[in-house]
Amino acid sequence: MRLMVYDMAVYLDHNATTPVAEPVVQKIIDSLNDEWGNPSSGYLPGTKSKNSIAEARQHIALMIGGKPEDIIFTSGGTEANNMVIFGIVSYYEDWLKSVSFLKVTNEKPHVITTNVEHDAVILPIRHLEKTGAIDVSIIHVSTRGCVVPQDILSKISHTTCLITVMLANNETGVIMPVEEIGRCIKEVNKQRKAENLIRILYHTDAAQGVGKIQVDVQELNVDYLTVVGHKFYGPRIGCLYARGIGQETPVYPLLHGGGQERGYRPGTENTPMIAGLGEAARLVCENLSTYSRHMKIIRDYLEEELKEAFGEGNVIFNCSKDVRRLPNTCSVSLIGVELVGHVVLSKCAHIMASIGAACHAQNKPSGIIATVLK
Amino acid sequence: MRLMVYDMAVYLDHNATTPVAEPVVQKIIDSLNDEWGNPSSGYLPGTKSKNSIAEARQHIALMIGGKPEDIIFTSGGTEANNMVIFGIVSYYEDWLKSVSFLKVTNEKPHVITTNVEHDAVILPIRHLEKTGAIDVSIIHVSTRGCVVPQDILSKISHTTCLITVMLANNETGVIMPVEEIGRCIKEVNKQRKAENLIRILYHTDAAQGVGKIQVDVQELNVDYLTVVGHKFYGPRIGCLYARGIGQETPVYPLLHGGGQERGYRPGTENTPMIAGLGEAARLVCENLSTYSRHMKIIRDYLEEELKEAFGEGNVIFNCSKDVRRLPNTCSVSLIGVELVGHVVLSKCAHIMASIGAACHAQNKPSGIIATVLK
Ligand SMILES: Cc1ncc(COP(=O)(O)O)c(C=O)c1O
Ligand SMILES: Cc1ncc(COP(=O)(O)O)c(C=O)c1O
Repeated sequence: MRLMVYDMAVYLDHNATTPVAEPVVQKIIDSLNDEWGNPSSGYLPGTKSKNSIAEARQHIALMIGGKPEDIIFTSGGTEANNMVIFGIVSYYEDWLKSVSFLKVTNEKPHVITTNVEHDAVILPIRHLEKTGAIDVSIIHVSTRGCVVPQDILSKISHTTCLITVMLANNETGVIMPVEEIGRCIKEVNKQRKAENLIRILYHTDAAQGVGKIQVDVQELNVDYLTVVGHKFYGPRIGCLYARGIGQETPVYPLLHGGGQERGYRPGTENTPMIAGLGEAARLVCENLSTYSRHMKIIRDYLEEELKEAFGEGNVIFNCSKDVRRLPNTCSVSLIGVELVGHVVLSKCAHIMASIGAACHAQNKPSGIIATVLK
Repeated sequence: MRLMVYDMAVYLDHNATTPVAEPVVQKIIDSLNDEWGNPSSGYLPGTKSKNSIAEARQHIALMIGGKPEDIIFTSGGTEANNMVIFGIVSYYEDWLKSVSFLKVTNEKPHVITTNVEHDAVILPIRHLEKTGAIDVSIIHVSTRGCVVPQDILSKISHTTCLITVMLANNETGVIMPVEEIGRCIKEVNKQRKAENLIRILYHTDAAQGVGKIQVDVQELNVDYLTVVGHKFYGPRIGCLYARGIGQETPVYPLLHGGGQERGYRPGTENTPMIAGLGEAARLVCENLSTYSRHMKIIRDYLEEELKEAFGEGNVIFNCSKDVRRLPNTCSVSLIGVELVGHVVLSKCAHIMASIGAACHAQNKPSGIIATVLK
């Protein structure tokens, strides 16, 4: 959270969405007015639009340590996640075809994930499982809200072709050991290559990491990474990073149409939103450490004040101090009969916060928190 | 086309994309600044955002004569078309399950379309055909660039479950007999119901109709209709209309996630773009007849001037006068050895126009025009 006073209330729900940064708004306005051409058109308004998109792609690439050509713009994080997950079915089919000397198999592609992923990861996986297209292993996080790498790795089988682990949880703020798991998958993949097994692709939904902590696709050892603009003061679109797109890492389009984004994501490009996303990325590149430090100071202050107000024994912070967590997130449970989350919040006229992900029913206790506290 | 002088050149490519209308830009700016909340959040910034989306939905519903609750916002026309087309596979499967007293069949769902649809219709259909998921009949338009209803209807078989015919072609401007075909499909469906056959769903891609001619889902007799913002001075998003969504007309989500748009289209809503789309729709509701008349006057003037400049015999208008066409579109071929489309245009420093859809290779002759002239 950056402290935001809104109509005399303090906004404490930046993991649900952030306001749009002023320079981002300006970039979008300029683009709406001046870069309205179709990026595929050869004349001036078209090329202006095209160049603007190229510039945004560069800022985003810089922000996550990837190559610009490995970025595909999408309508948001949900689409980016769905693209990776649905793509796995074709990936497995294509691999089966390429190794047709092996005997025909009825086995399905196998996907491993955690039990605290966002619905934009869990639900496409559940959908494919329900339709019989994939097998799934869901790994439970530990009581610290963090997944244990070995728990993921122990589930790998010869049909495993996707592992997806979020970079940081949207409710608890816990940072997952994505880097360590990635390093292990690299080793496993070397072995699998020798054994003619399908390569495991590795995805992280970095929606909550970007703009709060350093996110670097090289360090993280991921093949795919999801970026969501409205979680870091950008617009409501996103993008998918895919390392060595089409060559090193396969990408199967979800949509079919006019060939934009080199066919990986057709549809006339949303130039103004893309320009805004680029600007939000530029701001992160420039200011990340300042942002992070600032967030942490405010968050720590909030936690101290909560302890002070309710008494140390009545406040439980839902992830222990020994787990890495986002600098902006405070997940807290209050002990007391009357202290039901949504009731407490409804009485706080000057605080805008939430008891779970925004896209879930407003007054139901969070399943994620229940999982972590268990 | 509304006449637009841009850096001393005249923009004549409004079917590729339009500039964003000034009130639409203003609406987007206001929304970026003031409606940044997550529409799913219960506090003020959230409800502001939610209300703005509801208002936009109403404007769009009014524009196309449908109910607000039958509108689903999408990232654009490509997504809306893909949603309808991919949904057909599940629609057919669900129907087969519901009539399981019939013997098991290996037959596939059958789709009928025309040979002048946009790639955002043709390519998802080709993709499903290639993967063996559907059977397809592609109906050739007549030499007037218009599809003959009887040619469509004659291809209907007992497995037909989708007919999709664009409202107006993006290159020729020819308006298709969507209404008449719709009336016939209604009758056919009555018969099919009596015979326990699957109901044919009827879709039109109205990307090029909206904002230029009256578009009314009741008159058109369609189940689905695609709207694309950037073709009528709105932003780069779109929506899908589905008559009596979920009840009368099934909609199968392409994406899975946080349950937004009642689960039909998850992903945090792009409030500013949706607000802008609503404003563009409001402008159409208010001004359509003025816009249409104005477009026609300029288009007719252009055609007269072209005849004057090149000589009547050297100018071929690619659809005959007896076919209904959009008021804004002039599709013209010039007769003469040196008069190759992209060469001519490259020499017109003051005209921005195109020889085909923007998303196609810039200098290749248009396949659509070749089809129409054949
Ligand atoms: C972890 C995580 N992943 C994915 C998303 C989905 O992003 P969107 O709803 O913008 O598509 C969100 C936020 O909504 C999120 O917090
Ligand atoms: C007829 C038609 N349908 C669909 C589309 C696709 O719209 P979008 O590229 O915005 O997704 C277009 C324009 O690009 C079009 O002209």
